[in-house]
Amino acid sequence: MDAADPLAGKREAFWLPDGVIYLDGNSLGALPRRVMARMRRAVEEEWGNGLVRSWTDAGWYPAPQRAGAAIARLAGAKPEEVIVCDSTSVNLFKALVAALRLQPERKVVVSERGNFPTDLYVNEGVAELMDVELRCAEPGDIETAIRAAGSDLALVQLTHVNYRSGLVHDMARITRLAHQQGALAIWDLSHSTGTLPVELNACGVDFAVGCGYKYLNGGPGAPGFIYVATQHLPSFRQPIQGWHGHASPFAFDHDYTPHPGVDRMLVGTAPQLSLIALEEALAVFDDVDMTQLRAKGSALGECFIRLVDQELAGQGFSLASPREAALRGSQVSLTHPEGYAIMQALIARGVIGDFRAPDVLRFGFAGLYLRYVEVWDAVAVLKEVMSSRAWDRPAFKAWKAVT
Amino acid sequence: MDAADPLAGKREAFWLPDGVIYLDGNSLGALPRRVMARMRRAVEEEWGNGLVRSWTDAGWYPAPQRAGAAIARLAGAKPEEVIVCDSTSVNLFKALVAALRLQPERKVVVSERGNFPTDLYVNEGVAELMDVELRCAEPGDIETAIRAAGSDLALVQLTHVNYRSGLVHDMARITRLAHQQGALAIWDLSHSTGTLPVELNACGVDFAVGCGYKYLNGGPGAPGFIYVATQHLPSFRQPIQGWHGHASPFAFDHDYTPHPGVDRMLVGTAPQLSLIALEEALAVFDDVDMTQLRAKGSALGECFIRLVDQELAGQGFSLASPREAALRGSQVSLTHPEGYAIMQALIARGVIGDFRAPDVLRFGFAGLYLRYVEVWDAVAVLKEVMSSRAWDRPAFKAWKAVT
Repeated sequence: MDAADPLAGKREAFWLPDGVIYLDGNSLGALPRRVMARMRRAVEEEWGNGLVRSWTDAGWYPAPQRAGAAIARLAGAKPEEVIVCDSTSVNLFKALVAALRLQPERKVVVSERGNFPTDLYVNEGVAELMDVELRCAEPGDIETAIRAAGSDLALVQLTHVNYRSGLVHDMARITRLAHQQGALAIWDLSHSTGTLPVELNACGVDFAVGCGYKYLNGGPGAPGFIYVATQHLPSFRQPIQGWHGHASPFAFDHDYTPHPGVDRMLVGTAPQLSLIALEEALAVFDDVDMTQLRAKGSALGECFIRLVDQELAGQGFSLASPREAALRGSQVSLTHPEGYAIMQALIARGVIGDFRAPDVLRFGFAGLYLRYVEVWDAVAVLKEVMSSRAWDRPAFKAWKAVT
Repeated sequence: MDAADPLAGKREAFWLPDGVIYLDGNSLGALPRRVMARMRRAVEEEWGNGLVRSWTDAGWYPAPQRAGAAIARLAGAKPEEVIVCDSTSVNLFKALVAALRLQPERKVVVSERGNFPTDLYVNEGVAELMDVELRCAEPGDIETAIRAAGSDLALVQLTHVNYRSGLVHDMARITRLAHQQGALAIWDLSHSTGTLPVELNACGVDFAVGCGYKYLNGGPGAPGFIYVATQHLPSFRQPIQGWHGHASPFAFDHDYTPHPGVDRMLVGTAPQLSLIALEEALAVFDDVDMTQLRAKGSALGECFIRLVDQELAGQGFSLASPREAALRGSQVSLTHPEGYAIMQALIARGVIGDFRAPDVLRFGFAGLYLRYVEVWDAVAVLKEVMSSRAWDRPAFKAWKAVT
C-alpha cells in the first residue's frame, strides 16, 4: 500500500523523530521541515536585523490575508472570505455575535451535546451576553431540534468532524435545513480542514472557524481562521472592534470605521512568529489533491479498524467511531476502561495517540506523513501492551492532563 | 554617561544589527539573544521531536501563568493576578465587559480622546454591546469628566503612557478619583510595562492589560497580558468563555465551570511559539532594577531633547512630549510638517524611529539596550538630514503604512 501511495513522497516534507509512530496529528500536526529554516529567518533576520521595518519589508503585515487565502483553497471558499487571526474560540465568539446581529429578532441557537467543549462554552457565554437561548440537541436529534425551533431559530453551530468519535456531519444537508428555517449556519472546521475536502461555498455555509495547529500543521497554538460568506461581508458586525479590523489601521483615527471585507474580523496585532510558522506550513498543501488526501486518511483508518478487529478481539476495546469510512474523519477512536493507562503505555513505546476522558483512545491518521506500515506496527505494539499487561503500572495509571 | 551607566552591560543581552540606531523599541522591542536559541529548541526539539508530548513534558501548558508572574513583578502585582493571553485588544474587551458586569446599574465609561486608537475602538464596541455610554474627555479634562459622571460612572479606561506624546497619566490619582465615584479603573500598560515602574496594587487598579512586543521585547505580535486585582478574582465574569478558562480544561465537561482565578481570562490555546519567545525575553528583566531603568530612559530622553534644542533650532520641529521627565514615558515625540519624509530619510541612514500620522516623529528610548552615544549620533544624523534636505525626495514622501 505504501508503494502505491501517491502521497508517499510528502512524508519527506516533515520532520518526524526516530522511534515514533505519530497518530496524534489531529491534536498537534507534525513539524514541516521548511518551517525550521523559515522560523530561524523570521527570528534572526526579520526580527533581529529587520526590526520594526519587517512589518512592511518582510511582508509581515498582510500575513493574515495570505494565510487566509491558502486556507480558503482547502475549504472551498474564496480567498477574500477567509482570514487568519486569534484563537478558534475567540473567532467563534466573533462569528456567533456577528450572526446573531444579522437577525436580532431570532432568539434560539441550536448546537449539540458532544460538540467540542470550547464550542459549547463559547455558545453558552454568547447566549447569556446576547440574551438568546442555547439548545443542545442530543447528537442524533440535531435535525429534529432545528425543525422544532422553526422561525425562532437564529443559527445552528456545529463542528464538522466530532473531536471524540470522528463522526462527520453532513454539512450541506444541515446547512440547507438551517436555511429552510430562515437561520444561519456556523461550522467549526477544526478537525476537518487539511484532511477532508471542505466545501464551504458549495454548502452555502454562512460563517466558519477553524484551527491552525491540527491537520494544518501550523505549530502549537497556531492562530485560528475565520470565514465569512461573501453575501454577509457587507453587513456583518463583530463585537471586538480592534485596530487591525479598521479600514485604515495606521491612520490612527479616533473613530472606528470597519474594514469593508473579512479583515474586520481582525482585532489586535497578530502573533507574528506563530503566524509565520502556520503560513509556511500551509505551503506544504500547495500541490496536494484533497480528494487523494481524504482517500488516504480513510484507508489508513480502515486498515487500523480491520487490524484491531483481527488482533485485539476480546481485549475490551470498542470502536467509538463510525465504521463506515464516509461518515468518519481522519481519526479512529476506541474506548477501553483502562484507556488512559493503555495510552500511556503506548506513548512510552513511541506510539503517540491521545486520550480523552473518561475512556477514549484517539488515533489520528494524517495522510500527509503517515505510512500504512505504521498502522500495522502501531496495532502490533498495542497487542503487545495488552498481552503483557504493560499498561498495568502505577506510573501509567496516574492521571496527567494531555492536550 | 555610558561609562557610568549601571545598565550598560544589558546591551549584550540583545542582538542589534550593525549600522542601526534603534529608537523604536516602543513599537517592536529588539531581539534578546537568548530568544534565538530558545526558539530553535522550541521549534526543532519541542515541536519537532517532542510533538504533542511537549504540552506537558516541555512545560508548554503553564506558560501563560509563568509569563504572567514574570510581568506581575514588573507591574507591581501579585503573580496570581496576571496572565498572558490573546492580544491587548481582545484582553481589553474582556476586561471592559467584566468590569461593567461587576456594576450593571452604572452606565457611563470615561476614556479620553487621544487614547490609543484600538482602546477607543474596543470601548466603542463594548459600549454598543453592553448598552452603556462612552464619554471621551479631551486630554486635560479627564478629571472633570470623571467627577461629572458621578454615580453613573461605571469605569475609567485610560492608557498609562500616551502612545503619541509619551505623557504619563497619574495612575494613583485617577484611579482614586474613579473609586471616589464608586467606579472602577482599567489601565492599558502597553507603553509603560518594561520601561517604567508600574504599581498596580499600590495604585488600587482594578483591571489592566498590556502589550508583550514593545518594551517587553517579546517579538512581533507577542501575546498581551491581563491583570485582575485580587478582590475581583472571585466575582469577575468575562464574556469569551473558552476551554482554557475552564476550571478543568481537559475534563471535557459539557458545561462551563470557570476557573476560580485569573486563568478564566484565558480563552483558546495560546500561540505557543510566540508565547515562548515572550517568556524567554522576560528573563532579561530578572536582575533589572526598574527604578534604574526608568532613570536611564528619562536621561536618554533628556539628552535627546537637549540636543534637538541645541542642534535643530529653527528647522521646524516642535516638541510634542512633556519637557518634564517625570511626566514623560520612555519616548520623545517631535512634530514637523515633513515628518513622514524626514523619518524615511532617517531610517535610510539606519536611525530607526517611527511616524504617526499626521506629523509626529516618535523616538523611543529603551534603556536596556541603548547607549547615550547613540542619542548623540541620532541627532547628528537628523541634523545632516535637515541641512542637506535629504528628506526631500519622492521616494521618502510616498506614504507607506508603518506599525
